[in-house]
Amino acid sequence: MTITTAIVGYGNLGRSAETLIKAQPDLELFGIFSRRSELDTDTPVYPVDSINDYADQIDVLYLCLGSATDIPEQAPDFAKHFTTVDTYDNHKQLPHHYATMNAVAGEAGNVAIIATGWDPGLFSLNRVLGAAVFPEPQQNTFWGRGLSQGHSNAIRGVEGVKYGVQYTIPREDAIAAAKAGNGADIDGKDAHLRQCWIVADEADHDRITDTIVNMPDYFVGYQTEVHFISEEEFLRDHQGLPHGGRVITSGTLGKTKSTVEFALDLESNPDFTAAVLVAYGRAAARLKAEGKTGAFTVLEVPPYLLSTKSLEDLIAQDL
Amino acid sequence: MTITTAIVGYGNLGRSAETLIKAQPDLELFGIFSRRSELDTDTPVYPVDSINDYADQIDVLYLCLGSATDIPEQAPDFAKHFTTVDTYDNHKQLPHHYATMNAVAGEAGNVAIIATGWDPGLFSLNRVLGAAVFPEPQQNTFWGRGLSQGHSNAIRGVEGVKYGVQYTIPREDAIAAAKAGNGADIDGKDAHLRQCWIVADEADHDRITDTIVNMPDYFVGYQTEVHFISEEEFLRDHQGLPHGGRVITSGTLGKTKSTVEFALDLESNPDFTAAVLVAYGRAAARLKAEGKTGAFTVLEVPPYLLSTKSLEDLIAQDL
Repeated sequence: MTITTAIVGYGNLGRSAETLIKAQPDLELFGIFSRRSELDTDTPVYPVDSINDYADQIDVLYLCLGSATDIPEQAPDFAKHFTTVDTYDNHKQLPHHYATMNAVAGEAGNVAIIATGWDPGLFSLNRVLGAAVFPEPQQNTFWGRGLSQGHSNAIRGVEGVKYGVQYTIPREDAIAAAKAGNGADIDGKDAHLRQCWIVADEADHDRITDTIVNMPDYFVGYQTEVHFISEEEFLRDHQGLPHGGRVITSGTLGKTKSTVEFALDLESNPDFTAAVLVAYGRAAARLKAEGKTGAFTVLEVPPYLLSTKSLEDLIAQDL
Repeated sequence: MTITTAIVGYGNLGRSAETLIKAQPDLELFGIFSRRSELDTDTPVYPVDSINDYADQIDVLYLCLGSATDIPEQAPDFAKHFTTVDTYDNHKQLPHHYATMNAVAGEAGNVAIIATGWDPGLFSLNRVLGAAVFPEPQQNTFWGRGLSQGHSNAIRGVEGVKYGVQYTIPREDAIAAAKAGNGADIDGKDAHLRQCWIVADEADHDRITDTIVNMPDYFVGYQTEVHFISEEEFLRDHQGLPHGGRVITSGTLGKTKSTVEFALDLESNPDFTAAVLVAYGRAAARLKAEGKTGAFTVLEVPPYLLSTKSLEDLIAQDL
């Protein structure tokens, strides 16, 4: 079956979703709904205010909106008229978002898959799978190597910094400890180092380094590296939005130990987040076609529903 | 809810399952069904011929039987009377096993979760999830570091070998190529090296090495390492059944690349296989309680059903 999809929101996530939907054989992109009328795209663009006029023509609506305010404010209204998928990532508010979307989508007869992407999303799935296998699981989640927007902004605020980025990187010793089942005492500061790449005049290097490593909240207590590079190198190597991480679960099974690891290495955080979102859109359309309604997390979706292949082909080829 | 379980079969897998069921808070072990009346265990033992007398008292039956002949011959009969879980691992016969179990369990009103464990099992799940995210996935599965029974038997057949084991180990260069998205041309011989640990008289070392590396089918064409060690070291370090491996999926998303990796490092293959089996037993009991019937693969089971926690707790704590 061909699934007709649409996107609401056209930031990094929406642009990635647009490209990836078009690359999938069973997904069709009806259009992009936006508050802006002029978007740099060949896809048809419609005003978001008119979206309900098209409800009959769209199987799945991808909510490519920010988690800070847009999703909490707007997602329930979209779920009244559409089967939706989102990448809401405010962990503490997830029970509330689930309850809201479940009520609205359930009443409207729609499906709403929430909190796809990778954390929450594929990492959540692996936290639950990993922990389910062990009687007493030891589980650690590491993030990075990843660009941190907040820390990059902080170092760009230091006087004399022309360009600057900060990557959060899991420490090898912490990863090794987690794999060996000794991750119980690892906290965030032990687990990650902060790596800064900066363009600045040589005369300012010492002062900038000193300012950064002593910056409270952001860097104090962390292992922090400050590297100065040329503008040319910066513009060549540090323009992307890389991210990733790993979920490590370890434990004893009878008399032996085992370790389960799920790791992501992403050149672009929004591209991968969108790729997971797009795949869960396929699952949302199938759940709706089966007559299911209400909110679903990635924990409730049977994994074969993400695939372009039939269950029969998956059992024959991939099991 | 407490789930009452039983085990049929008492080899390595059955013994591991016994220990792990007893370590789970929501699982109770009713007994072990065996053709042998004398087992070295505190668990009640019943003759397998009498198993149907206990059908009303058992929620889930763990089929800890071999895939070569026992599962194909016996599993359908068990599924007539019990909700079952198995670790059937004959990839080519999986569609046939699925169809058989689906028919029998469906007619009897039972659930049969087939092919749990890790390959098939958790690896299958990660092959499907990984591939679903990318428009053109490049996917490689590596096995090991793992003890190979067949190759260990082959080297123990060489004259002069007192003790010997063979581990299959994924090659670092092949793993790196797969992570970089260049795994298309990797075949089994490129991807793995074979490491032998042997106890033998020093006078025989050269001849044994020569015989092994030139053994057709088993070693010719593989990178093979032969290490001679003392009997003491052998008995201390090479008595286990380690295994593991990884599923690596890589691909392009728009203009960027991403890599997804799922890796297992297992001190004991049967202990971990049993741990996955036991968790899917919980899911089988829940599916049956929901009124579901027929055969299920790991691809069809909503992941939260594996957990001891409620969905509500998982959404609040693990998502």
